[in-house]
Amino acid sequence: MSDRIHNFGAGPAVLPEPVLRQAQQDLWNIAGSGIGIAEHSHRGKVFDRVIAEAEQACRELAGIPDNYKVLFLQGGASLQFAMVPMNLLPKDRTADYLVTGVWSEKAVKEAKLFGAVHEAVSGKPNGFASIPAAGEISYSANPAYVHLTTNNTIYGTQWATEPVPPAGVPLVADTSSDILSRPLDVRKYGLIYAGAQKNLGPSGVVLVIIREDLVEVGPKTLPTMLQYRTHAGERSLYNTPPTFGIYMMGQVFKWIRDTGGLAAMAERNAGKAKLLYDFLDGSRLFRAPAERGSRSLMNVCFRATTEELETKFISEATRRGLDGLKGHRSAGGMRASIYNACPRAAVEALVGFMQEFERAHS
Amino acid sequence: MSDRIHNFGAGPAVLPEPVLRQAQQDLWNIAGSGIGIAEHSHRGKVFDRVIAEAEQACRELAGIPDNYKVLFLQGGASLQFAMVPMNLLPKDRTADYLVTGVWSEKAVKEAKLFGAVHEAVSGKPNGFASIPAAGEISYSANPAYVHLTTNNTIYGTQWATEPVPPAGVPLVADTSSDILSRPLDVRKYGLIYAGAQKNLGPSGVVLVIIREDLVEVGPKTLPTMLQYRTHAGERSLYNTPPTFGIYMMGQVFKWIRDTGGLAAMAERNAGKAKLLYDFLDGSRLFRAPAERGSRSLMNVCFRATTEELETKFISEATRRGLDGLKGHRSAGGMRASIYNACPRAAVEALVGFMQEFERAHS
Repeated sequence: MSDRIHNFGAGPAVLPEPVLRQAQQDLWNIAGSGIGIAEHSHRGKVFDRVIAEAEQACRELAGIPDNYKVLFLQGGASLQFAMVPMNLLPKDRTADYLVTGVWSEKAVKEAKLFGAVHEAVSGKPNGFASIPAAGEISYSANPAYVHLTTNNTIYGTQWATEPVPPAGVPLVADTSSDILSRPLDVRKYGLIYAGAQKNLGPSGVVLVIIREDLVEVGPKTLPTMLQYRTHAGERSLYNTPPTFGIYMMGQVFKWIRDTGGLAAMAERNAGKAKLLYDFLDGSRLFRAPAERGSRSLMNVCFRATTEELETKFISEATRRGLDGLKGHRSAGGMRASIYNACPRAAVEALVGFMQEFERAHS
Repeated sequence: MSDRIHNFGAGPAVLPEPVLRQAQQDLWNIAGSGIGIAEHSHRGKVFDRVIAEAEQACRELAGIPDNYKVLFLQGGASLQFAMVPMNLLPKDRTADYLVTGVWSEKAVKEAKLFGAVHEAVSGKPNGFASIPAAGEISYSANPAYVHLTTNNTIYGTQWATEPVPPAGVPLVADTSSDILSRPLDVRKYGLIYAGAQKNLGPSGVVLVIIREDLVEVGPKTLPTMLQYRTHAGERSLYNTPPTFGIYMMGQVFKWIRDTGGLAAMAERNAGKAKLLYDFLDGSRLFRAPAERGSRSLMNVCFRATTEELETKFISEATRRGLDGLKGHRSAGGMRASIYNACPRAAVEALVGFMQEFERAHS
């Protein structure tokens, strides 16, 4: 029997148990080197292999073309909110943002510090309950790029497919909460970024996949650490990178590969989400507020008929070892985050408890 | 018998073994929560306690007054090279830098992007072999701050005591390679920063100790993540922080406390360094190039009579399980980094091997 419980937290989130078991060993002594992974020089042979294998596994999983750089940076998606416009938005240009939630809004706020921002669509009027249809998006004349948030953790919505930007305009995506949860067509993007702490590893490392021509467009007067060229030119080793985080990310990449790759992952994720949404759609007590075509396969948000029942549900679930189900404070209700590493058994346990709770309260 | 070897690497560096043992456990399941430390929400009760205890232990160890904030940030000292002038150097002011090595020079380079820099002294002419005497420093008329690097890893030099800045001018220190290696008088500083990966924990987290009045002087037009006020106002939880790194730093703080605090640590560090310097001063084969009054207790740099012998020494040492002794590529020779977590037994083993090597080659 495991001494671990079911973790539905929105991030930092559950990690694959085989990865944790290996990390326990490698923290003490990795690859028979006599030194733990967190104690190895970032310029030594052992870590060199760790970062090279992490990059290679990521490239294979996501089918990343050779004209894209894979970077491991710090500061999370929040620093990317600033780095993207600092590098890609010239002062006299406009960037288009597709606003589908609070994280998109935060990205807009940082971009406005550096240039003009056009909100090509905003889901704010309907409380971010849906992903905009193509017809609702109105791009500016010649945007420097189009930015989107692929999955919205707070509202439980997710882009089913990428929006199509104006011809020749790079798509830039914050994919923090659904990266590598399904096959990814990197060619559709100019830049993809993702904080690790939901689908990729521990917090403290952000994955950036950037098309080569965009690496060099940033002004050379930016702080060295905030230029993509600095990190692209030094293979993410300009300064000491978050070595343990990169190691963990590499282990997670290998775990995804060893469990069937992105197609198998997408199938498992769709299956887990279906279990929950099917139950919610047939429930008298619970409901999912996100619109059907916009539903997230990563964060399943749901409400009960009263706030009292919601409080009771969260509290009883926690006692049963179903943790992290409280919705974001700005949205209320419940949220089950069922990222890649969340096992189907956890979702089954949750649905089982929801059925039981419904029987007891209706 | 341990399966671990002696690690003299300059950073990421050796960590205390009791901390690693605890981390192995906590990575799987911390404090009986059923969830590993890297999987806990940064807004949950478990991590809240982790970060609060880390801050408290740091405050107690270093005697940090209440009018200083303790922050856990990302991007390493390299991002602080930019954040310090972005926040503390108004466009029409000058900052004074005491240049004692490559890391000071990198700090100067970033500061010049934001304002005027005056090099109040530079050790470059003598190859950074010594720390300047008070009389060699020439401050500008009214600097916004005075910046120093307290320990210079590449040349093996260290400030024995703080320089005295002009009255009322804050001292800003990069203490990445000697933080908490000896008692610290925080009141002498306006801002102290230190990447974790030498004395405090794994890479990917940087400790910032900042006097409250300096928190608010940065322009509010800076990117949100690059304003000290953002992190001070949110107790380092504005965005998802590097939770595992902060946890590890907290464990290292407790380990320092439990092994006697900073006074005992300083005594052990001085003892370890003395073992090496005494041997070097009496050696016919080896010598320490750093000037006596400037010698670092953290990084002991040494040379042999020929480069051929140096190559042979490093290679044989590695075979004996004495790892990471190669000097920085810009300085050549050898370097033994003997940070807080490097045990005296490792230094004794190194000196023993050096004696043996000397007998065999003279």
